[in-house]
Amino acid sequence: MNRARRSLLSSLVAGAGAAVFGKSDAQAQTSSASTRPGQGYRPVRTLNGTTLPFEKKDGVKEFRLVAEEIEHEFAPGTTAKCWGYNGSTPGPTIEAVEGDRIRILVTNNLPEHTTIHWHGILLPSGMDGVGGLNQPHIKPGETFAYEFDLNQSGTYMYHPHADEMVQLAVGMMGMFIIHPKDGEPQQIDRDYVIMLHNWAIHPGTYRPDPNVMTEFDLWTINSKVFPAIEYPIAQAGERVRIRIGNLSMWNHPMHLHGHTYWVTGSDGGRWPKSLWRPETTEIVGVGQTRDIEFDAVPGDWAFHCHFSHHTMNAMGHDVPNPLGVDQNQVAMQIMSKIPGFMAMGESGMAEHQEHSMHMMGPENTLPMMMGNGPFGNLEMGGMFTVVKIRENLDGEGDPGWYDNPPGTVAYKVS
Amino acid sequence: MNRARRSLLSSLVAGAGAAVFGKSDAQAQTSSASTRPGQGYRPVRTLNGTTLPFEKKDGVKEFRLVAEEIEHEFAPGTTAKCWGYNGSTPGPTIEAVEGDRIRILVTNNLPEHTTIHWHGILLPSGMDGVGGLNQPHIKPGETFAYEFDLNQSGTYMYHPHADEMVQLAVGMMGMFIIHPKDGEPQQIDRDYVIMLHNWAIHPGTYRPDPNVMTEFDLWTINSKVFPAIEYPIAQAGERVRIRIGNLSMWNHPMHLHGHTYWVTGSDGGRWPKSLWRPETTEIVGVGQTRDIEFDAVPGDWAFHCHFSHHTMNAMGHDVPNPLGVDQNQVAMQIMSKIPGFMAMGESGMAEHQEHSMHMMGPENTLPMMMGNGPFGNLEMGGMFTVVKIRENLDGEGDPGWYDNPPGTVAYKVS
Amino acid sequence: MNRARRSLLSSLVAGAGAAVFGKSDAQAQTSSASTRPGQGYRPVRTLNGTTLPFEKKDGVKEFRLVAEEIEHEFAPGTTAKCWGYNGSTPGPTIEAVEGDRIRILVTNNLPEHTTIHWHGILLPSGMDGVGGLNQPHIKPGETFAYEFDLNQSGTYMYHPHADEMVQLAVGMMGMFIIHPKDGEPQQIDRDYVIMLHNWAIHPGTYRPDPNVMTEFDLWTINSKVFPAIEYPIAQAGERVRIRIGNLSMWNHPMHLHGHTYWVTGSDGGRWPKSLWRPETTEIVGVGQTRDIEFDAVPGDWAFHCHFSHHTMNAMGHDVPNPLGVDQNQVAMQIMSKIPGFMAMGESGMAEHQEHSMHMMGPENTLPMMMGNGPFGNLEMGGMFTVVKIRENLDGEGDPGWYDNPPGTVAYKVS
Repeated sequence: MNRARRSLLSSLVAGAGAAVFGKSDAQAQTSSASTRPGQGYRPVRTLNGTTLPFEKKDGVKEFRLVAEEIEHEFAPGTTAKCWGYNGSTPGPTIEAVEGDRIRILVTNNLPEHTTIHWHGILLPSGMDGVGGLNQPHIKPGETFAYEFDLNQSGTYMYHPHADEMVQLAVGMMGMFIIHPKDGEPQQIDRDYVIMLHNWAIHPGTYRPDPNVMTEFDLWTINSKVFPAIEYPIAQAGERVRIRIGNLSMWNHPMHLHGHTYWVTGSDGGRWPKSLWRPETTEIVGVGQTRDIEFDAVPGDWAFHCHFSHHTMNAMGHDVPNPLGVDQNQVAMQIMSKIPGFMAMGESGMAEHQEHSMHMMGPENTLPMMMGNGPFGNLEMGGMFTVVKIRENLDGEGDPGWYDNPPGTVAYKVS
Repeated sequence: MNRARRSLLSSLVAGAGAAVFGKSDAQAQTSSASTRPGQGYRPVRTLNGTTLPFEKKDGVKEFRLVAEEIEHEFAPGTTAKCWGYNGSTPGPTIEAVEGDRIRILVTNNLPEHTTIHWHGILLPSGMDGVGGLNQPHIKPGETFAYEFDLNQSGTYMYHPHADEMVQLAVGMMGMFIIHPKDGEPQQIDRDYVIMLHNWAIHPGTYRPDPNVMTEFDLWTINSKVFPAIEYPIAQAGERVRIRIGNLSMWNHPMHLHGHTYWVTGSDGGRWPKSLWRPETTEIVGVGQTRDIEFDAVPGDWAFHCHFSHHTMNAMGHDVPNPLGVDQNQVAMQIMSKIPGFMAMGESGMAEHQEHSMHMMGPENTLPMMMGNGPFGNLEMGGMFTVVKIRENLDGEGDPGWYDNPPGTVAYKVS
Repeated sequence: MNRARRSLLSSLVAGAGAAVFGKSDAQAQTSSASTRPGQGYRPVRTLNGTTLPFEKKDGVKEFRLVAEEIEHEFAPGTTAKCWGYNGSTPGPTIEAVEGDRIRILVTNNLPEHTTIHWHGILLPSGMDGVGGLNQPHIKPGETFAYEFDLNQSGTYMYHPHADEMVQLAVGMMGMFIIHPKDGEPQQIDRDYVIMLHNWAIHPGTYRPDPNVMTEFDLWTINSKVFPAIEYPIAQAGERVRIRIGNLSMWNHPMHLHGHTYWVTGSDGGRWPKSLWRPETTEIVGVGQTRDIEFDAVPGDWAFHCHFSHHTMNAMGHDVPNPLGVDQNQVAMQIMSKIPGFMAMGESGMAEHQEHSMHMMGPENTLPMMMGNGPFGNLEMGGMFTVVKIRENLDGEGDPGWYDNPPGTVAYKVS
């Protein structure tokens, strides 16, 4: 049994990409292709997302992206009119192999022109996607073809380079993964893909506001907020990679609990091992990607941006400071001015999540903090999820909460 | 005389931790412990702060933290109701040794529940401190125990993971230092610990506003602003380490004058020497720690965040632009609207520090710029201090201003 | 022909510094000096700027900087009263050689006192330039001398350390390049110098507002916005270095298209090769410098900060969200309140650049997006330029747009 074959089998057994295989004829091409030497690879898993299918035509892998307006749900209770690709934001992840020649057909169903820039990828100047500079803009209703060879491997992105401030602000972005043609230098058992973003969806509104520069309402992983973000899972001891892209307006320091991870690459490709840095918190800058790798340790481990406001939803910002204020007198006056106002916070805001169960906030607006865990409310939102690692995973679904070994949980002594 | 003994003596002689030794019985335990092989270490020095004492019980080092409301002074003239630990913000630094088993008893005297997350430390999932996920919240009046082994060394932090946005904004944070069990690979003569933070204490108010996301009033080192921040000192030629933590809302680039320093580690632990980077300005991201090391050069050397607004106090921001405006006509109108307004700035704001000597600003609000040096006003505030390095230090106190050798000061030629 | 001679000749042939040579007697000194062993170097090229001439007096290179108010043009259509050095912002680049002794005479023609800090340079404490701490302030009308040896090489900066928040906000900054005394370890064919900055020049005003902390109107490279920024050029295969300084209020991730570059140094000097990181996007923090190097690939390659708002001009921020709004009804009402208001954006903002050709915005305010390329409008502004690389450059001027080889441009298929 050759190396590529083993690699394919182990990926099926581990199941990391099980949901991806067999999805379409295009995907079937992927798996058959992966039996050929040097082309076997373990597919990535895009949380809350999918990998883009392709067709193989005359030796070229042909992908199709449709830029269009979509109705996007950030979590049950908040939706917005966004722009994305093939029905989602971020668009489906493009996955290919070093050495491939690819063609991407981009159809513009938006009300204004667009283009796509293939961020980090080495290609002819005319395929680079800056509208006006490298190509004509793709007008509404038109379809353009991009075609080039992939001569590198790593974690890249795609996004418009036309009316860029607006088109990024409303969700047009995606990840672009190129697997090495000779297989991974070190086995990766789980390979997750996430894109960081921010959204100005002011309480009570339904469209992202592209004019906001710094103070956003929603901070997202793959355009979802906690707890609507899928949990990355792994079996103890597995090698896990998380590939992180950032097309937001902040440089986000991403912190993982319970592990020291290695930062192993970027949109400059996989770094030589001598450059790997041990970290628990790595800044992923705007327009950067970062790969992190770690050996999975059992437990439920928070994984989040460390800006405390970036793990909160809209209602946490820009409201008057209630700390230490006896609110009985002023609540009624405020209620008359702010629809859905809830007097809270004299003793902090932990009481907020309790209230949010039975009180209504502004229309189409998530509570500031959400999520219920095995020990009570999590009081988080935004760019936060939990990496669930178990001694023995049973399938690919959510394994539930961690069953702590006796004597390993912080306990009340008085 | 064995190695650990010499190390203890030299630390007493160098005096870096002199204020810490002999403080309590718990501290006495530290020194006796440090006579055992592999457990000798030079204590760190937390500027404007202390190291947390402990008691040794059945082989476990037991620490006690009390979360509580405190009255905190940022500099003479500005105090606020903050939350901290054991009477201070940041809380006392926890200092232990790789291989230790530790127990930390956390009592909650706040008006709302809390928890503590041990940032960067590898421990059982149930000890990780995310309220609701890893443990029940610690309710007001309760005491919880955390207990785990320390199997690593480096610069870490502690902070709540419950109502996190609020509890961080009001000052709940501390540093957690783990010394290597086999001693430092390279001798460190001075080992300083600082925590960066920001505070929204709007002019004339007394409580940090947790809803502010980006534009803060006070930028602090160990919750103090210049010139209330203690000066790090060293003798020329000594090896100095500064361990920097950041639990603010900005990624701060920390710049040291007069030296090229090495960045030697992070909350991922001490880096292999091949990864050390020579820098004069290193970004310490939110939720990151960074260790910097240098060989001390004689002089008075500014050390500060390089964001120019972060070395200013509250009055520098969000006021109308006075540059080039003849203010005689408008000053009286503005004075009628803003209490304590001082017309200034037609020719820049250097005149501000002069005025602040004899004019009053808003209640409980520091002047924008402060500090007097050997050559006049320093015109700084916030996240700024001076590293004072001398050929011959006389004790551990402030050595005063640097005595420049003849011919080494910039001079007036006309 | 010795090594230094060859180096000088090749720099004249390559022409990277052609505009600099022969400018003055001082420059002539440079070239004669560069014939001496170990002192030959290829001069840097400051986009839209110059290198500061010097005179050699008794073995000391003497430079003169005059701090003064200037009228600065960001691009045709927007000027402001700024402060700078020798008539420009940034001030002229200081260029010297490791081993030099230099004297810099600083004359203050501003209405308030100032100083200069030599950022990253190792020097006596009294020459470090922090007003009040290291020296007396330089009062209006006075001239001060700084004199020190250069014992290092790399990419550094200069800027005031007096009323710093104001003086930086209005443009006082410059780059300081020190060439290695033994020549470059690896040949550099083109060596560009840029400084990143931000400006609060609110629409319709003429002076930078120093009180703004985060949300700026103009984002600049060498104090220019696209397309007024000179294009860096290179011949295919040449080794290009771009030295980037940042004295703004944001940590800017600088992205280059079409290349993987190496990050090779900082204000901590050139890094050992083992530390070079392959990237396409590197964060240049506030108060940091970063050197990037790459082997030039033919094409027109965008080079910009990846914050989407930082490649837009003033009108992109802080206006109401028009997406999806039928504006026919409200436009007239808004026009009555905002001078020069242009209803736009129901379908995105790409239509903005079209409108800006024939409609007037507020006085002294650039359109949000500008620039025309070979294929239409570029729809960019701010911190954006194009690196133009050709198989055969004809001189040092703008080579025009790239002539794409047949079949290498994205094309319309339907």
